[in-house]
Formats: sequence, C-alpha cells, structure tokens
Amino acid sequence: MEAAEFRKRGKEMVDYVADYLEQIDKRQVFPDVEPGYLRPLIPDCAPQDPESFEDVFKDIEKIIMPGVTHWHSPYFFAYFPAASSFPALLADMLCGGIGCVGFSWAASPACTELETVMLDWLGKMINLPGEFLAGKDGQGGGVIQGSASEATLISLLAARTKTIRRVQSEKPELTEADVMGRLVAYASDQFCATLGTTPCCSFDKLLELGPVCNKENIWMHIDAAYAGSAFICPEFRHLLNGVEFADSFNFNPHKWLLVNFDCSAMWVKKRSDLTGAFKLEPLYLQHHHQESGLVTDYRHWQIPLGRRFRSLKLWFVLRMYGVRGLQEHIRKHIRLSHQFEHLVLQDERFEICAEVVLGLVCFRLKGSNELNKALLKSINEAKKIHLVPCHLREKFVLRFAICSRAVESTHIKFAWQHISQLATDLLKTWEQNHHQ
Amino acid sequence: MEAAEFRKRGKEMVDYVADYLEQIDKRQVFPDVEPGYLRPLIPDCAPQDPESFEDVFKDIEKIIMPGVTHWHSPYFFAYFPAASSFPALLADMLCGGIGCVGFSWAASPACTELETVMLDWLGKMINLPGEFLAGKDGQGGGVIQGSASEATLISLLAARTKTIRRVQSEKPELTEADVMGRLVAYASDQFCATLGTTPCCSFDKLLELGPVCNKENIWMHIDAAYAGSAFICPEFRHLLNGVEFADSFNFNPHKWLLVNFDCSAMWVKKRSDLTGAFKLEPLYLQHHHQESGLVTDYRHWQIPLGRRFRSLKLWFVLRMYGVRGLQEHIRKHIRLSHQFEHLVLQDERFEICAEVVLGLVCFRLKGSNELNKALLKSINEAKKIHLVPCHLREKFVLRFAICSRAVESTHIKFAWQHISQLATDLLKTWEQNHHQ
Repeated sequence: MEAAEFRKRGKEMVDYVADYLEQIDKRQVFPDVEPGYLRPLIPDCAPQDPESFEDVFKDIEKIIMPGVTHWHSPYFFAYFPAASSFPALLADMLCGGIGCVGFSWAASPACTELETVMLDWLGKMINLPGEFLAGKDGQGGGVIQGSASEATLISLLAARTKTIRRVQSEKPELTEADVMGRLVAYASDQFCATLGTTPCCSFDKLLELGPVCNKENIWMHIDAAYAGSAFICPEFRHLLNGVEFADSFNFNPHKWLLVNFDCSAMWVKKRSDLTGAFKLEPLYLQHHHQESGLVTDYRHWQIPLGRRFRSLKLWFVLRMYGVRGLQEHIRKHIRLSHQFEHLVLQDERFEICAEVVLGLVCFRLKGSNELNKALLKSINEAKKIHLVPCHLREKFVLRFAICSRAVESTHIKFAWQHISQLATDLLKTWEQNHHQ
Repeated sequence: MEAAEFRKRGKEMVDYVADYLEQIDKRQVFPDVEPGYLRPLIPDCAPQDPESFEDVFKDIEKIIMPGVTHWHSPYFFAYFPAASSFPALLADMLCGGIGCVGFSWAASPACTELETVMLDWLGKMINLPGEFLAGKDGQGGGVIQGSASEATLISLLAARTKTIRRVQSEKPELTEADVMGRLVAYASDQFCATLGTTPCCSFDKLLELGPVCNKENIWMHIDAAYAGSAFICPEFRHLLNGVEFADSFNFNPHKWLLVNFDCSAMWVKKRSDLTGAFKLEPLYLQHHHQESGLVTDYRHWQIPLGRRFRSLKLWFVLRMYGVRGLQEHIRKHIRLSHQFEHLVLQDERFEICAEVVLGLVCFRLKGSNELNKALLKSINEAKKIHLVPCHLREKFVLRFAICSRAVESTHIKFAWQHISQLATDLLKTWEQNHHQ
C-alpha cells in the first residue's frame, strides 16, 4: 500500500472510528464470545501473498468486534475509565506518521522538548510545587511513562540506587550487596502512597506520611493514577496536599484526562535521581549536545530505550479542550457518581460502602457476600451494563465507575433501574431458596 | 470536538501524514534547532479556553517539524530502522478508536486472543520451535512487549523467581534473600545472548552457549531486536539456529518488519515461568473464565498493567504485505547494504570494519579515530544524510544502517558520493594541518 491508497483507506478508517464511537451505545457492552473463539475464525498462519484492504477491513466486524469489550460505551462502568477523545486520536495519527523514536534529544528534539514543556503545563494545571517542574533550569521535571506500574518501578529502582550510594558514602566498607540485602520498601496493601486506590478510591494521608519519610530519608513516591486528573479542579486540589514532601509523583492522563492510552505522567524533584540510576551512554546514542545541561535524554528516565511521540496527545487535548473543558469533563463525571450514590441511598435494600469522593461508587445489597456475588453475576450476564467487584475488608462490593466520555444522566438512571430490577428478581428467588 | 468534526479533521490528518511521508525526501533529514528551541515558541501554560483545530494544526509545521529528526527519510542511515507502513498506521487508528485496555482476557477478549494467534503466526514465519507457540494447548506462547529492554527485564525477573524456587525446593533452609544474594547473571558487554548487536550487528554463537546454559540450568534469553525480522527469509534463518536451547526469545517487528513502534515480540517456552513471577489477582481483575486454561491474562506477562490492542498492527501488516512482501522488504535492505559495502571497498582510503550480514555497514577511513570523528562531524553538519558512530574495540567507526522503507539504490549512491566527497575535502585539510 502506498500513499495514494492510504489517503483513501485512511479516510474510510476515520469514518469507521467515528461511526463506531458515535453508535457505540447500540453495541452490547460486553461480548458473548467464549475463550478460544478467535483462533478457529482465522487461518493457522500468515498468508504468503498480500491480501486486499477490503478483505482485512471486513474482518473487523466479523472477527474483532464480536470479541471487544466496549470501554467507551456509556454502559461501561467497570475498572476505571480509559481516556479517549477525538483530539487525542488525531494526535496519535500524527505521532504514527512522524514515527520517530525519541530516546535522546538528538533522535528527535521536538519529541523530547514538547514532552518536557507539556509536563510543565500539566504540572501547573494541578498546582504541583515548582520543584517538580523543569522550567528553563530546574532540577526536576516530568516524563511520560507507559503506565503507573512503570512509574512505581522506576521510583523504586531510583530510590534503591540513591540509598545504596548514600549508605556507601557513610560506610565505604559496605558492598552494594551488603546494603541491598538490608533495604526496606514500605507499602500498604495498595502499595506506595496512593491517592485514589483502585478498589474504593481512598486516599492515603500524605500530610502524615510525608514528614516521616523526609525525616527518615525515605524516598516517597505518590501514585494518583486515577485521581490525579481531578486535581485540575481547585475544589479537589486539597487531596494532593502533602505532595511537597514527595520525591516523585505520578498520575495517568490516559485514565481520566481524555488522552488515549498510553500516557502516564510522572514528575521528580531531582532528575539526577533518575539519570543516576538508569544512565546508558553507548557511543551510538551520544550526541554533541548532551553535556549542555539544557538537554534531556529521556532514555535515562525509563525502562525502555525507545519511546513514541506521546506528548502530541497532551498538546492536542490540552489546547482543544482548554483547562475549562477538561474541568467540565471531570466535574460531570463526579456529578454523575453522586447521582448514582443518591439513587442507591434512596433504596434501603442497598448500602454505600465507601465515601464517594470522585467518580467511583462502591455499593452492595445489605446482606451476605453470596447475595452480592449473585447480583453481580446477574448484572454481568444480562450484559446491559458492565461492572466489576472489589473486596473492602471482608465484604464483596460492587464498583460503579463513571467511565465513558459520552455517559449522561439518562445512562445512570437506566443503570440504576436495571440493577434495582435485577435485585428485586434476585431477592425473590433468594428468599424462596432461603426459606426451603 | 465531536464525531462530525473528527470526520473532517481526521481526513485532513490522513492527507497531512500521506503528504509528509510522500515528500519526506524534500525535508532536511536532521533539524537545525538548538537545545531549548521549543519552549519560547509556545505559551508557559495550557490555555483556559479551547483553541481551534486550525490553530493547533498550523503549529505542526511551525513548531514541531523544525525540531523533528526524519526517521523515515531515505537519507536517514542512523541507529537502526524504525518500522513504518501504511497498513500499520491504519491499524493504529483502529486501535485508538477501540481504545480498550487489555490487561485480562475479559477486559477485551479479541485484544488478547488476536495477540496470541498473531505471535503464533509470527513465530511460524521465523520457524521457531513448536514449544514457543501457544497453539490450542501449548505451554509456551508469545506476547507483545513495548521494547526489547522490557523483554530482557521480564526474562531476568522470571529467571530469578524460577531459580530461587528451585534452589529453595532443594534447600528449604535458605531464605529468598540468601539465594538472591548469590545469583549470577552472565552477559557479554552487549548483554544476554544477542543476535545482531547494535554497534556492528554481530551474532553470539547460540550453538555453543545453549548447551552450556541447559546443562547448568541457566535461563537463556536471546535478544534479536533488529536481526530477528530477517529470519523470515529462509536464507537467513540459520542465524537463529540454537534458539531451541533458549527459554525466551525476543525480536522487534517495530524495527524492521514494517510494524510501527511499539511492537516487541517475545516468546517463552513455559508461560508458567512468567505468570509464576508476575501473577497479580485482585478481585476487580478476576473473571469467571480465568481458571479454564484456555485463557490468557497478559497482565501476568509484563511490567505494566494496561496494554493497547497492538496485535491489530501485526494482523494488518502480515495480511496486507503477505510473507513474500515482507521478505522482499528485508531482502531489498540487505541488497542495499551490500551495494554500499561494495562502494566502500572500491575506495582504498576506506575499510569495512565488520562482516556485512544484514542491513548495517560499519566502515571508516583508514587512519586515526580523530580523522573519523572529523569525517562524521562533517557528514552530520552537512545534514544531507544522518549517521551515528560506534566503537569496535578501540576504533571509532561509522555505522551506515539501511533504514527507510522508501530507500532505493539511488539514495545509496548519493550517500556514498557525498561521504566520499566530504572525505576528499577533509583529507586535504587534514594533510595540510598534519604537514604544518
């Protein structure tokens, strides 16, 4: 396929994606397929000779779509949101077209520099302390990682290197292995300091943890993967108070800030903590600018060597929504979660299991875990909406997460009526069985 | 921006990308900008109110393009190729549109199942031993990682867990820390067993390393990041002989198989070695199929939790090129590297520094490292073509890598004439300086 055909097929694909997202509410949110469904539908091996675009294209609806869980359906309330927006899709097309691999400044200066500046923009939007920003000559700065797991791993490895060096400088007789065997990482069962845990969106008390970490020379990493996007709204920024004690901070615009996966934003106060741990300088990656101090080589900030031009997505989304547009998106989701919360509270068969702070409602039928498992099963088997559960202490709890960019009040009402009806049906049978 | 505007803007972006790639040879391959060029060109912070697509779009040429290193230019001969093709771009648009996060089978069955089958297709194309394939009930299988670094890290962590468990089962009195402190990872200065090293594309002798690893119960990981794509051609498959001794194997279709970054293909003989090391099962990620054995949850195979629908790129590319089309691409690049090699060999001022096996030619002026540094400097300052150097033992060497999908014999001839002329100019000055 050459450029001329790409012009035609690309436009068909744009329409296909627009159709898909415009009419996603008409698709069943969770697929009917059973494990192993796909293999029998396609050949055992790649074709020897080229197939046409038409052949591939028609297989999208035939083979792929029957097995897709529609994350952007307004009936999808599972996990946490996966961000998506048209500006981000456009930026990703450009990113693919440019197709540079930005492991060093020289490998594509725009790729590196836009990322640094976009992370400053984003840091300012959530009012991060200035130490985390790169500016023209800051010691800190931001980087786009693939996921919060990678940001946590990077922090852990950087903290390890930093601590080993500090201990060795105090006690030069110790080997790296001596120190390594005695290092301790403190974590709760959600790991590191977390703002907005996955099960119930709870918040660690940074103002208590932070001073202890600072006093004891412990690297503090804060993971706000989901919740972080909300801090662009001044009324939620207080949840981030205490970040000033942290060494590194991370949240995922690819969850809730309309930037498609992957875009996990991470900041550090001292960029030398990362580059000190990961620096890699073979000759073929050196360039004459690298000693200038103005230059960032992001390969020293991450596990992979290669990296895509992901800051384009941030640039397009921040500009085409504006801060206000993104705040509206966050506030709408939080309004909808409170709407759902109120519906639950009006039904005395149900209880709310955790404070509703952002876009997640944890709820359950008053009663046994078995009863609630049965309710979730009937919800997910009906496939009108999709939810996942969590454990809160000993309790089996249903999570209702506001996810889709297109979700509206009517979808919330529909979901609640549906859940309520299934609960009524279930309780009827359940009581009968219970009485037998 | 809603779907209607996306239809319009998406099509404009398709044309922009097509224009860019069609006319990329008219752009200077390496940019003129100095470090810090971008920050003064854009505002200090994100706009409060939305900007129009037109405003953002016109900034692409104004702000981004002046700082782009054009990896797909036929005058780009640096690093290794970054794969790109129109079918892959189309697939990435679909991937973005679907926007699912495939951390478990249930999170989007198609995303998981297509990946497993595509890695089987790809494994068969390079004639991997059957143990590495998933098939319907194999113990092995493939996964798409983001980069070869991640594949190596995953292998290392899986090997560590496996070895600790083995040692502990033999000596239950040892703690994990006792064992950990005594583990050894063997590597050359290119790390792990490598097929096609970055400096000069050399090959480790798997048939010597493999039996030793197997006998001593050492996990053997093979990294063929660049070279792996060539193994789809039967005449190069012998370079992979010995893979049968390995526990894990990895190569990057995003380097040389026309699949845009990121798509690093990794296979293991025993999937339980990975899932044993990384398994993560909070309730909100469990689904009722997971115990069935037919089901893969790829989050247990990687560092990140989330993952994009990257197998679509493989599916589109393998089908729209066919095996023959991809073989032609590989063979063309190797033909062009030999063309360049012959041009170098005809000029007695130059020498070839490593056997040209695939698409990389390592060469230098006979003479000092300083002379060759000066030659590279004059090449890269002229910005007609772009190269990077490497060290081979004590020598400073120039790497000429065939990179672009669009590179042709005429570009090779041009590059050589240009290098040859710059060498003539340089030698003239050099000798004058030398005689003074």
